[in-house]
Amino acid sequence: MSAARLQEQLSFIMEAEGLKQIFRQTVLPADGRAENDAEHSWHLSLMAILLIEHANVDDLDLLRVLKMLLIHDIVEIDAGDTFAYDEAGNRDKEEREQAAAERLFNLLPDKQAVELRALWDEFEARETGEARYAAALDRFQPMLLNCHTEGAAWRKHGVKRAQVIARNEHIKEGIPALWDHALEMIDEAVASGHLGK
Amino acid sequence: MSAARLQEQLSFIMEAEGLKQIFRQTVLPADGRAENDAEHSWHLSLMAILLIEHANVDDLDLLRVLKMLLIHDIVEIDAGDTFAYDEAGNRDKEEREQAAAERLFNLLPDKQAVELRALWDEFEARETGEARYAAALDRFQPMLLNCHTEGAAWRKHGVKRAQVIARNEHIKEGIPALWDHALEMIDEAVASGHLGK
Repeated sequence: MSAARLQEQLSFIMEAEGLKQIFRQTVLPADGRAENDAEHSWHLSLMAILLIEHANVDDLDLLRVLKMLLIHDIVEIDAGDTFAYDEAGNRDKEEREQAAAERLFNLLPDKQAVELRALWDEFEARETGEARYAAALDRFQPMLLNCHTEGAAWRKHGVKRAQVIARNEHIKEGIPALWDHALEMIDEAVASGHLGK
Repeated sequence: MSAARLQEQLSFIMEAEGLKQIFRQTVLPADGRAENDAEHSWHLSLMAILLIEHANVDDLDLLRVLKMLLIHDIVEIDAGDTFAYDEAGNRDKEEREQAAAERLFNLLPDKQAVELRALWDEFEARETGEARYAAALDRFQPMLLNCHTEGAAWRKHGVKRAQVIARNEHIKEGIPALWDHALEMIDEAVASGHLGK
């Protein structure tokens, strides 16, 4: 029984391996290549450990935050990455991701499938303190990399200040100090011509 | 004060970004490129969540395990990746990694520098249940990818069965069922000619 469960778990672990092949619009400062979802998920998780003191809510459950961040993009193995400012792609994003969640998490033994699906739903709903904190990091990290690559992804897609504000403003619900910092970064990016006015 | 701390933390987060540029000997099944340390750290962390029921010790602190796994390779930003079976490289590995730990973790505010350094020391010492569980995953994951790439890294370096056993046998201290599974994988790899006898 234990060996059979382990086999199911290892099958999921090899399926999740595919996250290393899902490339994002974000560009890495060191070499200009696209970041992938596995790297992004690791970076967010590290940030979650380090920035917890700035969270909007005290006594967050950091373990639940890390679990959410480590699995939050797994649906993109089936559904692909949808660029934040791609309006057409975002229209059917939810439907594609729901189908992906249904298939992927159900590769796991019963209870784990339910636990991971619940964590993903919680992250997406952004209603708990943990989900808001996790979502704030998920929005801030690409902005941080954009600001370290002269706005590469913003310039490529002609993104403007108001779009960045509208899309990312909920960072302040999770980590108020990070949103203050983000606003400074946005103004610098506009001043440097790395983000449209 | 809070803004200054945040700035120090973000500087560390951008320094840690360099983990995405540290390439390992492990090859990815999908496209044959080398895996990097950020992807590897993410994959181990996901495995830690899923395989905890197989740990040798009950009631492990999973949060501490995840913290260890998310930071365990950060020293390689300065010290580089040393291939498991590279005897010369492994001779001065400890010295290089100690210097890296000293520099990198001290970029953080005091208490966090101490916390992360202690986690890294704990992981390296492999004396607590958490560290043994984390170390078992760190050894098993490259073997798993090797077995999904016809032993690419083993064949490239002419690695033999006895070396794989000697290097990875401590998996059983952390996750006994995983070592049983690993032994089956090793025998299959030898039978297929993907690992030397």
